[in-house]
Amino acid sequence: MERIYFDNAATTSLDPAVLDAMLPFMTEKFGNPSSIYSYGRESRLGIETARKTVAKLLNAHPGEIFFTSGGTESSNTAINAAIKDLGCRHIISSPIEHHATLHTVEHLHHSEGIALSFVRIQPDGHIDMAHLRELLAQSTEKCLVTLMHANNEIGNLLDIHAVGNLCREFNAIFHSDTVQTVGHYPFDLRNTPVDFITGAGHKFHGPKGVGILYINENVKIKPFIQGGSQERNMRAGTENLYGIIGFAKALEIATAEYEAHSTHINNLRMYMAEQLKQHIPGVTFNGDLYGRSLYTVLNVAFPKTEKSEMILFNLDINGICASGGSACTSGANAGSHVIRAINENPDLVAVRFSFSKNNTKEEVDKVVEKLKELI
Amino acid sequence: MERIYFDNAATTSLDPAVLDAMLPFMTEKFGNPSSIYSYGRESRLGIETARKTVAKLLNAHPGEIFFTSGGTESSNTAINAAIKDLGCRHIISSPIEHHATLHTVEHLHHSEGIALSFVRIQPDGHIDMAHLRELLAQSTEKCLVTLMHANNEIGNLLDIHAVGNLCREFNAIFHSDTVQTVGHYPFDLRNTPVDFITGAGHKFHGPKGVGILYINENVKIKPFIQGGSQERNMRAGTENLYGIIGFAKALEIATAEYEAHSTHINNLRMYMAEQLKQHIPGVTFNGDLYGRSLYTVLNVAFPKTEKSEMILFNLDINGICASGGSACTSGANAGSHVIRAINENPDLVAVRFSFSKNNTKEEVDKVVEKLKELI
Ligand SMILES: Cc1ncc(COP(=O)(O)O)c(C=O)c1O
Ligand SMILES: Cc1ncc(COP(=O)(O)O)c(C=O)c1O
Repeated sequence: MERIYFDNAATTSLDPAVLDAMLPFMTEKFGNPSSIYSYGRESRLGIETARKTVAKLLNAHPGEIFFTSGGTESSNTAINAAIKDLGCRHIISSPIEHHATLHTVEHLHHSEGIALSFVRIQPDGHIDMAHLRELLAQSTEKCLVTLMHANNEIGNLLDIHAVGNLCREFNAIFHSDTVQTVGHYPFDLRNTPVDFITGAGHKFHGPKGVGILYINENVKIKPFIQGGSQERNMRAGTENLYGIIGFAKALEIATAEYEAHSTHINNLRMYMAEQLKQHIPGVTFNGDLYGRSLYTVLNVAFPKTEKSEMILFNLDINGICASGGSACTSGANAGSHVIRAINENPDLVAVRFSFSKNNTKEEVDKVVEKLKELI
Repeated sequence: MERIYFDNAATTSLDPAVLDAMLPFMTEKFGNPSSIYSYGRESRLGIETARKTVAKLLNAHPGEIFFTSGGTESSNTAINAAIKDLGCRHIISSPIEHHATLHTVEHLHHSEGIALSFVRIQPDGHIDMAHLRELLAQSTEKCLVTLMHANNEIGNLLDIHAVGNLCREFNAIFHSDTVQTVGHYPFDLRNTPVDFITGAGHKFHGPKGVGILYINENVKIKPFIQGGSQERNMRAGTENLYGIIGFAKALEIATAEYEAHSTHINNLRMYMAEQLKQHIPGVTFNGDLYGRSLYTVLNVAFPKTEKSEMILFNLDINGICASGGSACTSGANAGSHVIRAINENPDLVAVRFSFSKNNTKEEVDKVVEKLKELI
């Protein structure tokens, strides 16, 4: 059966050109980057070139880019460092963050007694900026603000500059989980008021098991994982050499083709939304589809019926991949903490469709056709 | 120039059969293992099959095997958990551990006030078992004993059963850094008194960026990296899918060919030792070459001369890869904390040669010939 993959916010296929870039480092160029002889030097060169590429594409200094095992490790590192090394005693976050953030801040709250506040979320899924200002103004401790750039379930985009400037005003540390936007939007970190951002290769046709943590050069932290002196003493452990090479290559391709791909993907998303509105009665959309929203994600709210409750299951049977929320809850009816935070309506079933450069209008047509049958 | 790679304790080349096993997961089978639809299920199946394979080969339960980003992360996880979740307030380690252990225990000592003792090392590089017993007997707190199975620089092998039994006697938690032995020796974890062991794929012709942590089923800890529910809530973050597949495949090959490869490699090592003794006056060996010692490592002590101090540099010029210690100090004359701990003699230059199944007697002859010229 032909499969239609509409779950690109969970993970994406590896771009064949990225694999090609990785392969030499999976065959002859296998040296340990920490070794100074020839084999080691070519690996080291591969990593440092990758770092420069990533830094240039994000307009950061190479010294601000650290390779990690993924988005989750990057966020764990940043959030823990803000508490342990930067003196933050109060975390301000939101109820719609990814679990990589939520579980980390909750753990610090419970085990280390760090104060924890959640900024209010509006019905359209955006954070309430006035409430954020209030929380910062009322805080008596140094704050860490951790708010995601794009929500992976409903696609809402944060105004990262506005939040960053607010943080500067109150001398707060600002971490943004940018896992859904690195590789999907241009970044200009030298002119963005943020202390930490994160990225994961597999969200933009790069490899799994590799991510980045950007640490603003003005911020000095200690490593989260201790050991050898890799990543300039900031992340110990023999490097995921080909993962790093692949990350940089994928970001290079994503940046070069941003205009074309983002337009193509957004068109698919808007086309699917229109088709659904036309053909399926009662359909609405979670998040801010027509406003500040990630162009890859369409979160559909179907009226709850016996059929719609089985929708993910039936889509799967028909070779169509979509999810009920983040990957961890894909297809499960356990429900999403994000959807609950914006909308307590029990009469709706949320399904996330998320697109990539590889998807086509024909696929959208087939999925809409199938949804008409199934709902 | 033809290169001779005698630094297999730093990292090994990826076995082509391992790459072949990984490639389907780098092309068509790219789904997120947490997704329940078809693409996700085949990835999940890949991971769970890999886990079963690894568990079977080590004679453990699949529920005791957790995939991580490498040996360093695994050791960080185990050591931190012993303190935070298992109530250990005293760490007993040794001065010849890898930095992944040493820097972690030193950090816990300095930042959390955990007591830290180092067991005495004998001149032959083995730990003083009587001293270990003494340290355990005198301790008034619950202890974590963290001692490596094989030393990566001098090759000494720990009697893991004797140490484990001693730990049981004193109700201590026992973590062993087995990064140099997983994939190099048979393991029988169901009959080994150990709470945590670690492994890294790239040390036995598997991929970089992936490792395992074995957690004995009787031990209950919390995750080190928080977020999604991957690895049964024990290690968050989208899995390094192909890394995991490759790890299992590499361990499968290593186990199947253990007899042949270990004999071949040990023969090379002993042959090189004999050749050096015959042809280079004053050569000795660090560690316990003729006793309990890792068959892959030969640590040579050359008398210090102007020429021997330049030896790694000159070997490199001649296409020969060897190292001065662990990868982090390869080729650097910064000196090794391991060599210093066993031998303060400033009149010796230590060079580690480490072998793999791909090395040959002809290569040893060439290297010995070159060493005769260079020394
Ligand atoms: C918004 C967001 N943050 C963090 C993560 C975690 O990234 P990873 O699973 O690669 O560690 C993801 C994806 O899983 C995500 O969508
Ligand atoms: C004994 C030992 N422990 C731990 C490590 C760390 O493993 P990794 O660098 O794969 O994280 C290594 C190798 O670098 C090692 O030789």
